Amino acid sequence: MTVLMSADELEAALRDLGAARYHNRHPFHQLLHGGRLNRRQVQAWALNRYCYQAYIPIKDATLIARTDDTDLRRLWRQRLVDHDGNQPGEGGIARWLSLTDGLGLDRGTVIGMRQALPATRFAVQAYVDFVRERSLLEAVASSLTELFSPGIITERISGMLAHYDFITPTTLAYFNARLDQAPRDADFALDYVRQHACTPDQQRAVIAALGFKCDVLWAQLDALHHAYVDPGLIPPGAFGHDGVWP
Amino acid sequence: MTVLMSADELEAALRDLGAARYHNRHPFHQLLHGGRLNRRQVQAWALNRYCYQAYIPIKDATLIARTDDTDLRRLWRQRLVDHDGNQPGEGGIARWLSLTDGLGLDRGTVIGMRQALPATRFAVQAYVDFVRERSLLEAVASSLTELFSPGIITERISGMLAHYDFITPTTLAYFNARLDQAPRDADFALDYVRQHACTPDQQRAVIAALGFKCDVLWAQLDALHHAYVDPGLIPPGAFGHDGVWP
Repeated sequence: MTVLMSADELEAALRDLGAARYHNRHPFHQLLHGGRLNRRQVQAWALNRYCYQAYIPIKDATLIARTDDTDLRRLWRQRLVDHDGNQPGEGGIARWLSLTDGLGLDRGTVIGMRQALPATRFAVQAYVDFVRERSLLEAVASSLTELFSPGIITERISGMLAHYDFITPTTLAYFNARLDQAPRDADFALDYVRQHACTPDQQRAVIAALGFKCDVLWAQLDALHHAYVDPGLIPPGAFGHDGVWP
Repeated sequence: MTVLMSADELEAALRDLGAARYHNRHPFHQLLHGGRLNRRQVQAWALNRYCYQAYIPIKDATLIARTDDTDLRRLWRQRLVDHDGNQPGEGGIARWLSLTDGLGLDRGTVIGMRQALPATRFAVQAYVDFVRERSLLEAVASSLTELFSPGIITERISGMLAHYDFITPTTLAYFNARLDQAPRDADFALDYVRQHACTPDQQRAVIAALGFKCDVLWAQLDALHHAYVDPGLIPPGAFGHDGVWP
């Protein structure tokens, strides 16, 4: 029933899964890049997405801590550099804060994460837990959503610049940097998975890991959509609850 | 009974503890740098110490994965760079393998770690577990043995070069690099502890963390001494057991 795929077949299966389940297909993404959200909805997206950004280097350090392979640690370390920078104020997290600044959000509110949706925090924690608890191969595979991110980022940059007068190229600097970083990271992880998923069980686990990660991203947009678009039920304590917008 | 110390008093307590319990006082260290070990005993030391070296970046990534403080992550990341290097063949682990090469040990044997003493592996694992499970402050404090390492390294370099014809400056390159790295790391960790140990309980925990780490280092030399010096009882499976020296 389960047969060993070639590396090319495995890659094709992963790309098919991404085509079906990556969050560029989510209605909230379509609204966001299509210019059909108001400023508060875009703020809610950026404030929630900050939680995800903030935990990415924690996730990556968790992966580094799991392997005695010096080469893998060294290569994966570049992701820490990308997110935390080499100096204060540099790196992906700082660039995300430029975006939230540009949207008029208070930094303390964003960094505190207390106004993020519970579902956002749970999804992010599930990702970190997955990387800590599953096999190293699955941990690497869960990063493979980056295979699909250049497309979504290009849509997002052009769409948001075209449609929102409160968005500038400076506030979107995060995404420009990711256009170079994501393909490099994705190529490495894909190559790793092609080499190390050597049994049908491992190949199935790798595909499931990418599916899990698509769920992590999708669940975040589901929560945003439910709270801020339709039906607009903002949970207690979350950004904008009871009509209180900080 | 428990009073809050000033930061200077805390630092003095930490330095007192190191003066009493750092492993430069261990008989095995005295034998090692005094030139009173034979080649096989020095090999056993280097082979066992490799396990400790190999897990240091894992320990450091474990610490990085525990904090949402971008600045702390960025500064601590330098330790990963020091140990894993920026290119294959660079970094502290590669330099340690130059030492074991220079001592005539097979790389596969060293990297496999199977001939290391069980007590070495247990001590190293205890260190990684401590950094994962205790408070972040204790995790940082457990690195403070580096306050005392420049002294021991200086003794070791001059002693080993003077006394062993199978030791060269090239094989000791690891220690030369640490002479610059350790004080920088120790200064940062000491400053962190001085700032963040703000209650008597925290100060006590910080001192206990340094004591724990001194135990981790001491236990490794105890095991070497017991197996390879006095009484010379090498455990089954370990390097040199049954008179089989690889």
